[in-house]
Amino acid sequence: MLAAARRIDGFALRTPVLEISPGLFFKLELLQHSGSFKVRGAFNRILSAGELPAGGVIAASGGNHGLAVAYAARKLGVRAEIFVPEVTSPVKVAGLEALGAHITQTGAIYAEAAEAAAKRAAETGALTVHAYDQPEVIAGQGTTGLEVVEQTGGVDTVVVAVGGGGFAAGVTLGTESTADRAGRPGTADMSGTEGSAGMPGAPGPVGSPGSAAGVSGAGPRIVAVEPERIPTLRAALQAGRPVPVEVSGVGADALGATKIGGLAFEILSGPRVESVLVTDAAIVAARRALWQRHRIAAEPAGAAAYAALLSGVYTPSPGERVAVIVCGSNTDPATLAV
Amino acid sequence: MLAAARRIDGFALRTPVLEISPGLFFKLELLQHSGSFKVRGAFNRILSAGELPAGGVIAASGGNHGLAVAYAARKLGVRAEIFVPEVTSPVKVAGLEALGAHITQTGAIYAEAAEAAAKRAAETGALTVHAYDQPEVIAGQGTTGLEVVEQTGGVDTVVVAVGGGGFAAGVTLGTESTADRAGRPGTADMSGTEGSAGMPGAPGPVGSPGSAAGVSGAGPRIVAVEPERIPTLRAALQAGRPVPVEVSGVGADALGATKIGGLAFEILSGPRVESVLVTDAAIVAARRALWQRHRIAAEPAGAAAYAALLSGVYTPSPGERVAVIVCGSNTDPATLAV
Repeated sequence: MLAAARRIDGFALRTPVLEISPGLFFKLELLQHSGSFKVRGAFNRILSAGELPAGGVIAASGGNHGLAVAYAARKLGVRAEIFVPEVTSPVKVAGLEALGAHITQTGAIYAEAAEAAAKRAAETGALTVHAYDQPEVIAGQGTTGLEVVEQTGGVDTVVVAVGGGGFAAGVTLGTESTADRAGRPGTADMSGTEGSAGMPGAPGPVGSPGSAAGVSGAGPRIVAVEPERIPTLRAALQAGRPVPVEVSGVGADALGATKIGGLAFEILSGPRVESVLVTDAAIVAARRALWQRHRIAAEPAGAAAYAALLSGVYTPSPGERVAVIVCGSNTDPATLAV
Repeated sequence: MLAAARRIDGFALRTPVLEISPGLFFKLELLQHSGSFKVRGAFNRILSAGELPAGGVIAASGGNHGLAVAYAARKLGVRAEIFVPEVTSPVKVAGLEALGAHITQTGAIYAEAAEAAAKRAAETGALTVHAYDQPEVIAGQGTTGLEVVEQTGGVDTVVVAVGGGGFAAGVTLGTESTADRAGRPGTADMSGTEGSAGMPGAPGPVGSPGSAAGVSGAGPRIVAVEPERIPTLRAALQAGRPVPVEVSGVGADALGATKIGGLAFEILSGPRVESVLVTDAAIVAARRALWQRHRIAAEPAGAAAYAALLSGVYTPSPGERVAVIVCGSNTDPATLAV
């Protein structure tokens, strides 16, 4: 994680923290380049490859992940190919093209576009950047957690949205207490290269002391917030393994993974993590409150974490220090109006 | 100034700073309570009165100042009367009423509403909160400058918008170097109570060593940015005294003072201050860039400072550390769309 932070320093922004009332912090990750945290993972994945990949990078996404990969590739001078399903709106395609990405529209649904991207990557040797289920991606997203700890001076609880789980998993690792990390080199140097000792599920010595460090380390409580209409983590926790769920509702465009990532599940099934669900109405109300009271222009998925607080699904104890990560802003501002 | 900072601590937010590229900082004052810096001055003015004013507070403004006074009064449990001209839109009146303010719509133009407010204050004994030309107001706004210095670790230049001049004047005083302040007690304790020794134009010993401290103290360069269609400071600098100007253009709703404040002019005519003008087109472009590139939802006046950089009216030297204050967000978000 610290290695990931060093690697993406100067590429991803250190987004600011706002203490909105005593002990309640907003981490304004929605001000990140490309409008979401996704760019942290994209930079870390590409920069972890050693030499910049001659075959370019490839990803499947018509949303925040696609924008992030396109942004990172342009910044690094690498070719980006983005595969999106045929239903993707012209506005989103235009946004990706404006970042210089080469777009292929194929397949009726996301999964078909992703399959086509994988096939193309095998042909060209391009580096794939997964939306959530790669160690480098999780480590990159997790730098947000490191910053939260540094910028707040420490909190008791971090509230974070879950889609495919890469962001929440990264934040869980990134907020592990330093004391704990110091004693566990595998986690302290969660560099995000495949096979890192601290990354559960990654190849590595079976049963090595580091292999569970990311799961059981000390640190703040992580409140993992999902729209009740996309409960990928909740369903996996109940089943004991990642299982597919139906996807619908206001968060679907950015939290619409059909299944929690395997790496993410290993981390998010740990004892520090508490799963909560919020209604679509709560997300809409939180998004409105963020704009009307605080002039923060979030997309629905970006407001999901705050919805858990505002709706009372998660109620902090008196004196509890809480950081809420507001994680995305790729939204039509006209929809913020009263 | 330090006293003002202590006074409003816990009432106004310590807004965050974002380093958008190495050495270029955005002070995100648009995330302030009530959507602009104005609430700092309102709190400082009201809290400086000692006991909370039994007759309540009174102000004339249909814009950011009115919202700020209404917000501060509600927070402090004080009655607020806001006078606005008859032309004020129902939306703005509703916004003020939602904050619990008592609204009087009177007069064809702002000056007539202000006159009626002054008359009413004389009758009721309510505390007037001026939009810019009171020492407590200037000191309150200036706490933004103190924060900029602390949060950036120091900059060479601060870029700030000018309307009536209270904000820019406060920021000029608030960014005075600490070493300088330490040697000048009148300025160090710019508490914002009338008669402070460091406040030019305020009653005090004529020619006292403190009387010019706010004007000539060391500190960063202040780039004072005005829309070219509302050049109150430029006109005053040319005339050698505050003079009325015509008011028009995209910044008129928030930077539409017809004349620079007398106290503000004393401070802003000092050697650290450089006056620049920006076109309306530059303001519109800066506002669009703030949203599209950085997801910062500013009102036109809030984007004026950044317009000076983006349009090249002010070009930093290589290595120059620059803070741009983005100071207001009371805008219809629908107007941010492409």
